[in-house]
Amino acid sequence: MLQVSIIGASGYTGGELLRLLQHHPQVEVMAATSRQHAGLEIRKVHPNLQDLELSFQNIAPEEIDADLVFTATPHGASMDIVPLLVEQGMKVVDLSGDYRFNDIATYEKWYDLKHKHPLDAVYGLPEMYRDAIKSAQLVANPGCFPTGAILAALPLVNEELVDTLIFDSKTGISGAGIKPTPATHYPNCGDNVVAYNVTTHRHMPEIQEKLNEYSQVKVGFTPHLVPVIRGILTTLHTYPHEVVTPEEIQMLYQKFYQDEPFVRVLDSGEIPSLSSVRGSNYCHIGSFQTDDNGRLVVVSAIDNMVKGAAGVAVQNMNLMCGFPETMSLEFMGLHP
Amino acid sequence: MLQVSIIGASGYTGGELLRLLQHHPQVEVMAATSRQHAGLEIRKVHPNLQDLELSFQNIAPEEIDADLVFTATPHGASMDIVPLLVEQGMKVVDLSGDYRFNDIATYEKWYDLKHKHPLDAVYGLPEMYRDAIKSAQLVANPGCFPTGAILAALPLVNEELVDTLIFDSKTGISGAGIKPTPATHYPNCGDNVVAYNVTTHRHMPEIQEKLNEYSQVKVGFTPHLVPVIRGILTTLHTYPHEVVTPEEIQMLYQKFYQDEPFVRVLDSGEIPSLSSVRGSNYCHIGSFQTDDNGRLVVVSAIDNMVKGAAGVAVQNMNLMCGFPETMSLEFMGLHP
Amino acid sequence: MLQVSIIGASGYTGGELLRLLQHHPQVEVMAATSRQHAGLEIRKVHPNLQDLELSFQNIAPEEIDADLVFTATPHGASMDIVPLLVEQGMKVVDLSGDYRFNDIATYEKWYDLKHKHPLDAVYGLPEMYRDAIKSAQLVANPGCFPTGAILAALPLVNEELVDTLIFDSKTGISGAGIKPTPATHYPNCGDNVVAYNVTTHRHMPEIQEKLNEYSQVKVGFTPHLVPVIRGILTTLHTYPHEVVTPEEIQMLYQKFYQDEPFVRVLDSGEIPSLSSVRGSNYCHIGSFQTDDNGRLVVVSAIDNMVKGAAGVAVQNMNLMCGFPETMSLEFMGLHP
Amino acid sequence: MLQVSIIGASGYTGGELLRLLQHHPQVEVMAATSRQHAGLEIRKVHPNLQDLELSFQNIAPEEIDADLVFTATPHGASMDIVPLLVEQGMKVVDLSGDYRFNDIATYEKWYDLKHKHPLDAVYGLPEMYRDAIKSAQLVANPGCFPTGAILAALPLVNEELVDTLIFDSKTGISGAGIKPTPATHYPNCGDNVVAYNVTTHRHMPEIQEKLNEYSQVKVGFTPHLVPVIRGILTTLHTYPHEVVTPEEIQMLYQKFYQDEPFVRVLDSGEIPSLSSVRGSNYCHIGSFQTDDNGRLVVVSAIDNMVKGAAGVAVQNMNLMCGFPETMSLEFMGLHP
Repeated sequence: MLQVSIIGASGYTGGELLRLLQHHPQVEVMAATSRQHAGLEIRKVHPNLQDLELSFQNIAPEEIDADLVFTATPHGASMDIVPLLVEQGMKVVDLSGDYRFNDIATYEKWYDLKHKHPLDAVYGLPEMYRDAIKSAQLVANPGCFPTGAILAALPLVNEELVDTLIFDSKTGISGAGIKPTPATHYPNCGDNVVAYNVTTHRHMPEIQEKLNEYSQVKVGFTPHLVPVIRGILTTLHTYPHEVVTPEEIQMLYQKFYQDEPFVRVLDSGEIPSLSSVRGSNYCHIGSFQTDDNGRLVVVSAIDNMVKGAAGVAVQNMNLMCGFPETMSLEFMGLHP
Repeated sequence: MLQVSIIGASGYTGGELLRLLQHHPQVEVMAATSRQHAGLEIRKVHPNLQDLELSFQNIAPEEIDADLVFTATPHGASMDIVPLLVEQGMKVVDLSGDYRFNDIATYEKWYDLKHKHPLDAVYGLPEMYRDAIKSAQLVANPGCFPTGAILAALPLVNEELVDTLIFDSKTGISGAGIKPTPATHYPNCGDNVVAYNVTTHRHMPEIQEKLNEYSQVKVGFTPHLVPVIRGILTTLHTYPHEVVTPEEIQMLYQKFYQDEPFVRVLDSGEIPSLSSVRGSNYCHIGSFQTDDNGRLVVVSAIDNMVKGAAGVAVQNMNLMCGFPETMSLEFMGLHP
Repeated sequence: MLQVSIIGASGYTGGELLRLLQHHPQVEVMAATSRQHAGLEIRKVHPNLQDLELSFQNIAPEEIDADLVFTATPHGASMDIVPLLVEQGMKVVDLSGDYRFNDIATYEKWYDLKHKHPLDAVYGLPEMYRDAIKSAQLVANPGCFPTGAILAALPLVNEELVDTLIFDSKTGISGAGIKPTPATHYPNCGDNVVAYNVTTHRHMPEIQEKLNEYSQVKVGFTPHLVPVIRGILTTLHTYPHEVVTPEEIQMLYQKFYQDEPFVRVLDSGEIPSLSSVRGSNYCHIGSFQTDDNGRLVVVSAIDNMVKGAAGVAVQNMNLMCGFPETMSLEFMGLHP
Repeated sequence: MLQVSIIGASGYTGGELLRLLQHHPQVEVMAATSRQHAGLEIRKVHPNLQDLELSFQNIAPEEIDADLVFTATPHGASMDIVPLLVEQGMKVVDLSGDYRFNDIATYEKWYDLKHKHPLDAVYGLPEMYRDAIKSAQLVANPGCFPTGAILAALPLVNEELVDTLIFDSKTGISGAGIKPTPATHYPNCGDNVVAYNVTTHRHMPEIQEKLNEYSQVKVGFTPHLVPVIRGILTTLHTYPHEVVTPEEIQMLYQKFYQDEPFVRVLDSGEIPSLSSVRGSNYCHIGSFQTDDNGRLVVVSAIDNMVKGAAGVAVQNMNLMCGFPETMSLEFMGLHP
């Protein structure tokens, strides 16, 4: 049994990791840390996990003993913790933004932080870096918006069919985390749609850097908060260089993703929706329609908490540890 | 492998049965019928089930060949189908109201139908009839409201502590089924709460008949539609005959349900919520508070589509076929 | 023009007062205070009020100069402010709980506060105390739940038809105020129903004290948070002493409320819903069904922010100042 | 008093017209027609209008007698009714798509209908055609999406700053009308976001034709259904020909709309939201941010039922009849 610890387990991502690992046949969760809730039973914070006989602990990173650690810690905090774990030889999946960028300057500019401990890390999107993940010691789990955006665009960018991409994303409110704020206050965000960070969201440079490894593109990204708990729907608007038919695009995507265990290219004419992937590790992609002006629309749907965070983290763990990639991630979406 | 068919698989309950059975290690789904959608791939109707390589079929009940059949057919239709299946020796879990009542006259009065084919059936609430279910050929799956109400009241009624029970229930809108109606139209039911059938819902006599097997009670029941997709929260208001403390009630419930795989009595002071059981087969029960006038409040939460329909149907199948009772039902609630 | 000030104008109730008074033909708002937002334009906090050329001010109560003051201040704070205003001869509508109780001991017990400055005040429910309100200097605006509950029960209690009343209320989340908390965090309360303070809500003794002025009753009250922004739906379950028909109850209510400008008894068979009163000062009442065990169900619907707070406060102001009672309150509900 | 009739008054737009006209000081509603509900009191269908003493009538268009008629009839039906009314000299505001297009061929292509009775009509967007509306006999009320899109883009297009515009719109579900469908079924659209008609919505050519009167542009338009009752949030992504700063764009918009009674350009840094315009006739516009690649983002918010339908229809009536333009439309948004 793989011995696993979760640092920062009191947030939503921590809760999802615990839920997904609870029935994982190869994993034993040794510790789930939370400074704020130390000593409290986990079920008091994650009330769906009634049967989990475990309490939050306040353990210093130096005292963590595990084969693999998930660091579900805030941006800026991970860079203090991850190097300690890596030094001791543990495998690490870091869910913060601290190790996602190849270019430290980009990170420092967009996160407005000095990076104290850069390390070699593999960007944990299996659809891009499966082989590297398998042998990585440190995996940087992707951001939720980048996952939906990159998967929607990858086949096009790989073929060098496009150079300007506009991602208009709609996210459920769990994406804002477990801490109540005015933006997540029900009377403010219920029955409402709110655009935010319309040109300044830090997931934009992450999308841009990763897509640029396939071909040079210009990325525009605007996120919106919609009254939904889970899920990100990403609408990609782009103008291909050459005339392409929906059928050609459909085939391009089907071929590109044909062996992917967690990407489903929908039948022609089908449009992804959040409820089809709710709670699941799947990404649905569809639409592929074009208009008279040459605009192509591709739509992707993921659960931001699963494929966009805890699920892909477990998928990365499975790859890093030689388990079947889909282990403990077979759940289909909770539709409706 | 148990060969299973689902008659009436295009509704929400059918979709949930297919989802729960898809990964059941002992079950093979042979046929899923739908007159309306015959020939259509199941994923076109249940878009979460992208990997299910199965299409709806239009098979007459006489031609069904299976070890066990789920009849997810409307009230009044099941009584024409179930006898044919039972005669051929198949096991049947019927999800309609047709076989829930011991007293046919009560059924006929409240459903306003003549019962054409009464049969011996076991009421499929494992917490009441586990042993009988194990040896039953025909199980009548309980109504969704009765499941939440009966589980909230059973320990009290069993101890003859109460005689008048008021169940004020709040249901998610999936309870109304897959067919669009004015009541389920988003602009009508969103941001709204609607009481309906305030004294005339046909789940009332079902609750009453089952509780009366423990002790004589008078049941009041009023359902409300709330802007929620899944779940039933039931608030039981009752005045016990004798002075009881919350601690005593808490202990009574914990003891009563201590061996139940799918009932969780929450810690003292905790109140059940729908998100803790979303998508799961669990029933959470809590509160146990009393006021100065002697009123006791007990609250239960279930997912109406799982513990209130498809999940308990699979639980019944597991019991009828000698599988582990929790097989394929281990999923914890999707919180948040 | 009546010169009006609002103390504590940055909350939801303050925003609603400003909205309702903006077009009131007899009122001029002189000052809207907020310590936190002093100096900020009001539209930055209440973004619907784009045309309001007014900024929040930080004015000490002693320096308020107005004909009438709305104190939208927290429980416990009003008792320090209201006496200063009353002494200076201003009319006051206090929206806190501080002056709602005749019996100070009840207030002190349930609010867990020592009352420093008791004063004579009229309970501002026009349907109970219209004449007294007209000549009052200090009006204590009712709680939101008590408004819905009392209006649902008054005709029955007035006729001494009942003695035990169970109010099962469902409130929109704006009732929790403008301050974000875990309970109002969208991922926690969206797609969910939460019972809280199941036997201990401080609106219970308020309902009880007011109804007891008509006849002696025992009140049971349990509130629930539902994923709705505005509105309170109250379901009253009660067992009348004598057999009454729905028609008799319907007529009793119609007669009792026939001259009320803001109470509408619905046609026989109609059930109130929140969307019918959304944004309006109306209370809808209906159902009046009875079951075989003698249980009577009455349902009322109000907008908690309007009839349950700011709207009735303006209605009280209109009465206190001799304006037409409905002035500036004619808005019908925003349905759907 | 202007005598007004509404043809097709049982839908949501009809209900909103009745609500807005109920307190209009210059208008008397003579008739509200509905074939389906003929004879029924209006409050049975629009339950917020409890005090409206009027029943639906089944009147043939030939028998309508009024000074002004609102035709809230479906596309294709208006073209049979409007000419009859116009011939008799009545003023008409038509809320269908039948008279919106200058180019009949475009209409016929996108609506897949032969236009039987083309007539001269003024496009009823006061911000474009105020003067023409004042003297028009027939006004074609704009589509809901075009209103939000055109108002967001007009100052840019007028200055010839852009040529390719991508409108990514998010609409509340009331936009789909009062008739229940699978798309509006709560379990399908609640907690979900659905893109539809991603490149084929018939509001696209309407936007394109109207903007082309200012300068030649290419319009891309993709609508999404979000779990909101009312409102359209439109996110415009575009790449201006020249480098412009947010401040310049902000000033351009403020100047362009400075005299508009129902358009509000938000303060710098503020982003429109649906709750700020809920129930109101206002359009809020803001953002004006640009990114490093030259993408400019403008966001507009309207209530699709008011500024997007019934409200602007009343605004048009006010203009056509010489009433103050804002009469009966002063309501500020219902925030929260």
